Amino acid sequence: MPSDKPLERTIYVGPFVHSKTFDELELCEDGAIGVDEKGKITFVDRHGTGVSNRPGWESAKVVRISGKGFFFPGFIGPDSHIHASQYPNLGIFGKSTLLDWLQTYTFPLEGSFSDLEKARKIYNRVVARTLANGTTTAAYYATIHVPATNLLADICQTRGQRAFVGRVCMNSTLSPDYYRDESAEQAIKASRECIEHVKKIDPANELISHIITPRFAPSCTKESLKMLGDLHRETGVPCQTHISENKNECELVKELYPESKSYAGVYDDAGLLTDKMILAHAVHLTQEEKELIRDRKSKISHCPASNTAITSGCCRVRELMDTGIDVGLGTDVSGGFSPSILEVTRQAIWVSRHIAMHEGDHVKLSTEEALYLATRGGAKVVGLEDKIGGFDVGKEFDAQMVRLDEVQDGDDELDDEDGPVDIFGNESFENTVAKWVYNGNHQNTVAVWVKGRLVHQTKKFAA
Amino acid sequence: MPSDKPLERTIYVGPFVHSKTFDELELCEDGAIGVDEKGKITFVDRHGTGVSNRPGWESAKVVRISGKGFFFPGFIGPDSHIHASQYPNLGIFGKSTLLDWLQTYTFPLEGSFSDLEKARKIYNRVVARTLANGTTTAAYYATIHVPATNLLADICQTRGQRAFVGRVCMNSTLSPDYYRDESAEQAIKASRECIEHVKKIDPANELISHIITPRFAPSCTKESLKMLGDLHRETGVPCQTHISENKNECELVKELYPESKSYAGVYDDAGLLTDKMILAHAVHLTQEEKELIRDRKSKISHCPASNTAITSGCCRVRELMDTGIDVGLGTDVSGGFSPSILEVTRQAIWVSRHIAMHEGDHVKLSTEEALYLATRGGAKVVGLEDKIGGFDVGKEFDAQMVRLDEVQDGDDELDDEDGPVDIFGNESFENTVAKWVYNGNHQNTVAVWVKGRLVHQTKKFAA
Repeated sequence: MPSDKPLERTIYVGPFVHSKTFDELELCEDGAIGVDEKGKITFVDRHGTGVSNRPGWESAKVVRISGKGFFFPGFIGPDSHIHASQYPNLGIFGKSTLLDWLQTYTFPLEGSFSDLEKARKIYNRVVARTLANGTTTAAYYATIHVPATNLLADICQTRGQRAFVGRVCMNSTLSPDYYRDESAEQAIKASRECIEHVKKIDPANELISHIITPRFAPSCTKESLKMLGDLHRETGVPCQTHISENKNECELVKELYPESKSYAGVYDDAGLLTDKMILAHAVHLTQEEKELIRDRKSKISHCPASNTAITSGCCRVRELMDTGIDVGLGTDVSGGFSPSILEVTRQAIWVSRHIAMHEGDHVKLSTEEALYLATRGGAKVVGLEDKIGGFDVGKEFDAQMVRLDEVQDGDDELDDEDGPVDIFGNESFENTVAKWVYNGNHQNTVAVWVKGRLVHQTKKFAA
Repeated sequence: MPSDKPLERTIYVGPFVHSKTFDELELCEDGAIGVDEKGKITFVDRHGTGVSNRPGWESAKVVRISGKGFFFPGFIGPDSHIHASQYPNLGIFGKSTLLDWLQTYTFPLEGSFSDLEKARKIYNRVVARTLANGTTTAAYYATIHVPATNLLADICQTRGQRAFVGRVCMNSTLSPDYYRDESAEQAIKASRECIEHVKKIDPANELISHIITPRFAPSCTKESLKMLGDLHRETGVPCQTHISENKNECELVKELYPESKSYAGVYDDAGLLTDKMILAHAVHLTQEEKELIRDRKSKISHCPASNTAITSGCCRVRELMDTGIDVGLGTDVSGGFSPSILEVTRQAIWVSRHIAMHEGDHVKLSTEEALYLATRGGAKVVGLEDKIGGFDVGKEFDAQMVRLDEVQDGDDELDDEDGPVDIFGNESFENTVAKWVYNGNHQNTVAVWVKGRLVHQTKKFAA
């Protein structure tokens, strides 16, 4: 658990890496990032060795990287899409695709979150696990249960993770009797209760926000979508849902909403397609839908691990970006098999290569571009691009310290605490970063800060 | 390093999992596997709790799984394809595809293995790393250097890994001046020296075999391929090479070998396409080539992580299996980004799902099928299906102990030694295995045995 002591002025000294633009990383080998008592970045020095003489910062605390490593922004947006309640089902999907997966694996588990003690155990673990994987901002889907949803908000606040916490709304008969909102009115009432709870625990939304969460069009009725759209307009609270993940789902939406022009049109008709809407998946969008989404300034959370695992299809990230839509990454636990945005970053790269096999090299996402999606892209998706996403003066310090193990002569036994990346010492800084991207895991994220507060650390951080 | 004390009779007590058939796992929750002083499996008991009274085994050593976990066969075949010398380049490939990747990243690194101390450091690490990832049998590509290749064989023997060690043959001008065999004759002479070395250190090939290794057709001349084919027939030593990984490569082979009917035909013409040949990749084979390979009983090593990372294409595993070809898995380090066959098992599943998006669900590999490729499939590929691949009486005990962490109430901090898989306690045994497959890593492989000898362990094994 993070300490609740007031923050000290701190200088983070060592190499740092962050996105400059969509396709370019800044690789600074001798950096120093000054963070004030409110967790804000006050200066970023590219020649950090002399930093201790900086006026006003002579007695600042110094956090230095020992050995090979670098500071990297906390992963964000990411999860611009994570079903916290589904965490225990990670890796469990068999050969299913979306609609049968929901009925077989997902609804029974989510339904059990009426049990608050069960919810506490799982949510505590999800937040600990995502923080340990460097996720400093998450947009969570909880369940329909108000107490458990509020508990997740409490846990995020206590553990210091920046979070959007959504109470899932679903009143249509697609959902089983045992796990469904009684009515549209009841869904709205429950959402209001969750909004009120967040207002109480974090009135200025410093870390925690509610997010209005119709599960997806087939789980809702036209009436409930409309009422959620009204709630969105009335309160200004952001919203999230799924769109166009799977072909059968798209067919189903056509049947259920014959009067809407398209799947995106369903949300637009309800007043939900705004610049505060995060749409997960977006695999099978038409060109018209893409343009509508761009015109409405809605955001997309790309969930490549999930899309591959349950064979939904390949989201065209390059096309979305070229259309002018903001894209971030989501784990989509547990359709996605991993809670790690670093794994999802790799999966985004793999998916782009699979598209490239059919459509040519221009659609490939580079390492740099995928890391952008995981940080600044995600920040735009959750509407916090002015606050987080990179090491810029005025932004809040949401960061992870990445440390990589150097292979020593004769050091040939691997143990539990040894991470997956081997550094031989003659790698360029750029290639060191690449080695982390392609083989790194939670063991390399030795410390994590949100708004300047240390919210996760491993023994290697102290070492 | 493994102890060289004589083995004791040992009973491995606890759940075990292995492949029964291509699409079926045996999940035994109460097993006991008896292994004799030579490392051979003497009995497999499916109701293991009463095993201590077995006549002749009353005083046998007992190795028990504490907590959640199971015994699983060591990964094999796997790497039916790994370039040991390329290990330091893991994750470093940029946007390259095969032919430019070779020139930019690969040849310069391999060329440096004339330095035996460098080779020692890297090879020691590769073997330690693959063992730690549960790979009990590897087929290695070394480099053209005889001393370094022999050193790799020595290291495998000392560390106790079953290995096929190949001295790479490449005399064509595709390779740069600084890294090429002088002539076909010199390539054969060097290969013979390596064959002799293995005869000296392991005359019965108990663990180590040489493997004749023409890099791939474009790296060799027609003459050298023919001479390697003759060497193969003369000595009976197995062989390995690459085939049909990338479309430009296939075009190049057509140009270089106009008189051969096909890429597979090039190897066939040289007398290399036999039942002891391992062909890596096989992405763009024609139906005729598949049938030729089946008729010659040659084997295929599927390298999905590599094929995706450098955008080579998707190997049709289902088609190959249906044609009657034996298939195993290879990491193809460092075209492949990971040294872990468990990661490659996942990648095989992802690639099959990407093919399924275009060709339908029947091509999907299930979890069970992918695990088969990683164990029994691999055993067939390296010609050791009578010795290893599963827990059958008469086979040698090549195994890993998998241990998964159970989430305890209030246990919400993650540290360096915590693995990636969270078990909540109410998972079925089948789903526990699935959780390992989709999120497990080296931290879950707490002990590894080859031929009954403990060759890797972590602190959690003792705990």
